[in-house]
Amino acid sequence: MPLNQDQQTEIAALRQVSTPTRRATVPALEEILYEALPVLDHGFVRVIDYMGDDAAVVQAARVSYGRGTKKVSEDKGLIQYLMRHRHSTPFEMCEIKFHVKLPIFVARQWIRHRTANVNEISARYSILDNEFYIPAPAQLAAQSSANRQGRGTVLEGDEAKRVMDLLRDDAERAYGHYTELLNEDEAGQVVDPARSGLARELARMNLSLNFYTQWYWKTDLHNFMHFLSLRADPHAQYEIRVYADAMLGVLDRWCPATAEAFRQYRMGGAHLSAKGLDVVRRLLAGETVTQEESGLGKREWTELMATLGR
Amino acid sequence: MPLNQDQQTEIAALRQVSTPTRRATVPALEEILYEALPVLDHGFVRVIDYMGDDAAVVQAARVSYGRGTKKVSEDKGLIQYLMRHRHSTPFEMCEIKFHVKLPIFVARQWIRHRTANVNEISARYSILDNEFYIPAPAQLAAQSSANRQGRGTVLEGDEAKRVMDLLRDDAERAYGHYTELLNEDEAGQVVDPARSGLARELARMNLSLNFYTQWYWKTDLHNFMHFLSLRADPHAQYEIRVYADAMLGVLDRWCPATAEAFRQYRMGGAHLSAKGLDVVRRLLAGETVTQEESGLGKREWTELMATLGR
Amino acid sequence: MPLNQDQQTEIAALRQVSTPTRRATVPALEEILYEALPVLDHGFVRVIDYMGDDAAVVQAARVSYGRGTKKVSEDKGLIQYLMRHRHSTPFEMCEIKFHVKLPIFVARQWIRHRTANVNEISARYSILDNEFYIPAPAQLAAQSSANRQGRGTVLEGDEAKRVMDLLRDDAERAYGHYTELLNEDEAGQVVDPARSGLARELARMNLSLNFYTQWYWKTDLHNFMHFLSLRADPHAQYEIRVYADAMLGVLDRWCPATAEAFRQYRMGGAHLSAKGLDVVRRLLAGETVTQEESGLGKREWTELMATLGR
Amino acid sequence: MPLNQDQQTEIAALRQVSTPTRRATVPALEEILYEALPVLDHGFVRVIDYMGDDAAVVQAARVSYGRGTKKVSEDKGLIQYLMRHRHSTPFEMCEIKFHVKLPIFVARQWIRHRTANVNEISARYSILDNEFYIPAPAQLAAQSSANRQGRGTVLEGDEAKRVMDLLRDDAERAYGHYTELLNEDEAGQVVDPARSGLARELARMNLSLNFYTQWYWKTDLHNFMHFLSLRADPHAQYEIRVYADAMLGVLDRWCPATAEAFRQYRMGGAHLSAKGLDVVRRLLAGETVTQEESGLGKREWTELMATLGR
Repeated sequence: MPLNQDQQTEIAALRQVSTPTRRATVPALEEILYEALPVLDHGFVRVIDYMGDDAAVVQAARVSYGRGTKKVSEDKGLIQYLMRHRHSTPFEMCEIKFHVKLPIFVARQWIRHRTANVNEISARYSILDNEFYIPAPAQLAAQSSANRQGRGTVLEGDEAKRVMDLLRDDAERAYGHYTELLNEDEAGQVVDPARSGLARELARMNLSLNFYTQWYWKTDLHNFMHFLSLRADPHAQYEIRVYADAMLGVLDRWCPATAEAFRQYRMGGAHLSAKGLDVVRRLLAGETVTQEESGLGKREWTELMATLGR
Repeated sequence: MPLNQDQQTEIAALRQVSTPTRRATVPALEEILYEALPVLDHGFVRVIDYMGDDAAVVQAARVSYGRGTKKVSEDKGLIQYLMRHRHSTPFEMCEIKFHVKLPIFVARQWIRHRTANVNEISARYSILDNEFYIPAPAQLAAQSSANRQGRGTVLEGDEAKRVMDLLRDDAERAYGHYTELLNEDEAGQVVDPARSGLARELARMNLSLNFYTQWYWKTDLHNFMHFLSLRADPHAQYEIRVYADAMLGVLDRWCPATAEAFRQYRMGGAHLSAKGLDVVRRLLAGETVTQEESGLGKREWTELMATLGR
Repeated sequence: MPLNQDQQTEIAALRQVSTPTRRATVPALEEILYEALPVLDHGFVRVIDYMGDDAAVVQAARVSYGRGTKKVSEDKGLIQYLMRHRHSTPFEMCEIKFHVKLPIFVARQWIRHRTANVNEISARYSILDNEFYIPAPAQLAAQSSANRQGRGTVLEGDEAKRVMDLLRDDAERAYGHYTELLNEDEAGQVVDPARSGLARELARMNLSLNFYTQWYWKTDLHNFMHFLSLRADPHAQYEIRVYADAMLGVLDRWCPATAEAFRQYRMGGAHLSAKGLDVVRRLLAGETVTQEESGLGKREWTELMATLGR
Repeated sequence: MPLNQDQQTEIAALRQVSTPTRRATVPALEEILYEALPVLDHGFVRVIDYMGDDAAVVQAARVSYGRGTKKVSEDKGLIQYLMRHRHSTPFEMCEIKFHVKLPIFVARQWIRHRTANVNEISARYSILDNEFYIPAPAQLAAQSSANRQGRGTVLEGDEAKRVMDLLRDDAERAYGHYTELLNEDEAGQVVDPARSGLARELARMNLSLNFYTQWYWKTDLHNFMHFLSLRADPHAQYEIRVYADAMLGVLDRWCPATAEAFRQYRMGGAHLSAKGLDVVRRLLAGETVTQEESGLGKREWTELMATLGR
């Protein structure tokens, strides 16, 4: 469990309080509000706040005075139309805010999504917690030979053990040295009054990239889906993909009609290039097409055939 | 009143509904939620939704598990500290959404604030309403002679009347021709079945810039204050300033501690240049300083003296 | 010709000057640098400056110390790979700056692309020129009956004449009244010393949306292509599409390998939804599929069949 | 020297090539183009490309057909006016691109500036170099007691030595383990054919935050100055401030008039709060003002007095 007792108590207290509001509310999302959804060995995603719902997308698209929604089927149809035709502005009218705990190397990928608001704990002010990511055995894989950015076969036996020991030992030593450098323990107590300790902003640089950090991260529904489309994708690194997967579940609760359109028109679909489309047309016309005459490279051809289920 | 009966009914219906939420709520803002705050002759600002409150700024700055607030005085102190030191990210953690009705020439200034989400009614799809801005007599001013971007003395007598008549006649004729071009009236009914009418996306170009448009506009608290600091400023054109003034009132309701810090450290303060600061230091040291030896230009010197109350 | 003699002279003078640089240069783009490419009746697009070329994309993707390019074929392959896999950041490493003269209603669509830098002439300071857009006869079309946002059949005979006269008369009257309100002519000379004239920031609101404005517009290669993909598209309004078409020609000169990849993987391709992809797979497997069992709506089915050339 | 022989050769080759261009060029910047300006022990900043100069700011502000500049003194005056009145858009019309080598913990601060384009080397694809940051002895400081985010007295004697040894040993061990995990050496050669090695995207997480990374970073002149105003500030951490200092020197070469205005109106000036301004006015009027009656907190009062040179 990634939370200590104090944190659990704080969250439980927050969840007790309910106030009336005139704003759009989403009961399915309220259910899990503030709760930590566990990810990796010490990480989590918590929904802290949200603005709007499926109806708010419709309301903005219609620039309405009231809620703007009509029949459920019409609203769903409009959302699908907007998604299909890349009318992104109505989806920007909803907003969601998360509290995320994640390894630093994952944070470094995540932060590349610039259209978001971020507030990270600062290791210039605070002492970081003694928590680091160690992959589960099934995730300890070799470099893929087919894909320069992916993983291949899972390590086994002695090599797996050696890797695991090494990762764990190094992280433990790093944290030990971190507190030694600081001359403070995890709770901020001075260890040796005879020493000065190193400034926090310097000592942190001795920690490794698998240590956990935390941030508040807020974005709008359109950019949230863009994030998901890139990070819940099989090409994304496993360690960020599990966060995206958890957040895709949040989307399902929050805006179910938008989530359905997103799966239909973004995640589940495929983009064909001009030459790829030409191949499809010729195949449908009964022609035989080979890779050579398609004008496609080998890898692109293979990917196209996989997409087409051939 | 900028709203017709149907619109008022829609808004009243929305305001009836109340649901429980675990999210942060702000009663003072809920009070006016969805209500149209009138601006200019036909415009308005309506708060449609909001996320967060003063405490959410504190919560994000502390990256907390719970609400993150301590004593009210400590929270206020932290907000002032953040504002004073330009730590903007915690203020980005609150969000607000408005429905605004505004003249097109005001919309053209407003849209220059890029860090916001906008959904405007489209005159490619819809027929615009027959509503245009005519300044109140006190606003009919000549070009300022002192300030190349401002207004000078108010027009009077025959000239004022002529200006007023001309603005009103032209706008009325423009709308008449707009419906004639469309071959549709305001309600979308065909006028003359023998004619085709011009496409909406073309007909609209015959309208003048004082016609009203509408949009949903959403931004975060930090960028909201940036907008206010530029548009609630005396140098801003009157017709956008009145919108900013109304929205400054919204800020007071929504996040009173932030609003106070904003008035204290942004709107109410002054920025001194390096040379301006040097002048102040020398004056405080009892020296006499003239414009010539200050190194400041004439206008800059005059502005500095005004700032210093001399 | 959209330029007067003075402007032509200024541009010709600029084009005379040549200086040596160590930066990447693109001769094919230098050829047309500063020249006005005419668009619509009085508008233009001028390339004012640029940074980078195809090789700069490769250089950034490789984070190189030198130029970063290898064989031309490898560079082209890398550019295609980046485009295909939506690796957008290397394309952000090139930048282009335009001077554009365009009708205000076109500017209002264009400005919605937020990831760009814009500097527009201000009608608070300056007097706008007496230039307005009048569509060519072939563009005077009725509203489309099939498409709520498009144009249908071209107007003819008396109706066409009436529309044309009305647009021209209204614009001429608007400009006449604009100078009367200002009490200044186009050159800034006071007309009647006995009158004050209305402030420029107010007088402009009597102009209609087909008057021309001008701006400097600067964006990076990635966002430039995003703009082109939306605005050089058949769904875009004709009056903005002609600007995008002219700028697509600029892209061909500037970064030919990127332009080719853009046409191949963005403009020329097609996005299939999950259900659309399923239809394609079933058709390729020899099944008969009807709209009803496809799960697609009628319009979507029609569009899919058109895409597939059936 | 942060560059190896190959890199120096590549850069020297680039610097040899000169081509004619019609674009604005800046000889003082061309002089250092592509050269590595050393920062910290292994880092650097290299200017890779630029667009525009001081005159381009003026040209955009005037939306000119030609260069747009008048007399040098008028241009300087306009640049100062724009800076003083926060007219930021003309400054967005210039662009600069850097290649930067920097420790990961510095990169983590830097990346928070979102209005920039970034292309970083990927440790999912590449093997990182064996280079890490070790502070110079003068930088090994204790936590400041006065300032929760700063550094205090410099460590000396045994403690300094212990800190230095520990940082160096840990970094060396980390890199050794990194290559062991990869089962590849720095040049990508397999170490032990009997082992699989861990995927690069995982192995990198065992490196500490003082290892160097590299990126291409591109931004416009306005956002560049915003970056400098925050990072060349005494409150910024030393390790990022030295980068900003080097880049401030680049600004001086690139746009000297803008640089002067920036120092005059941004870096060298001071912002007074409403209460602070009130204190200044009363002091200038000959009143005695104490902290208590000023309404300012103790720290704010102290800072104000320091600003005023009292």
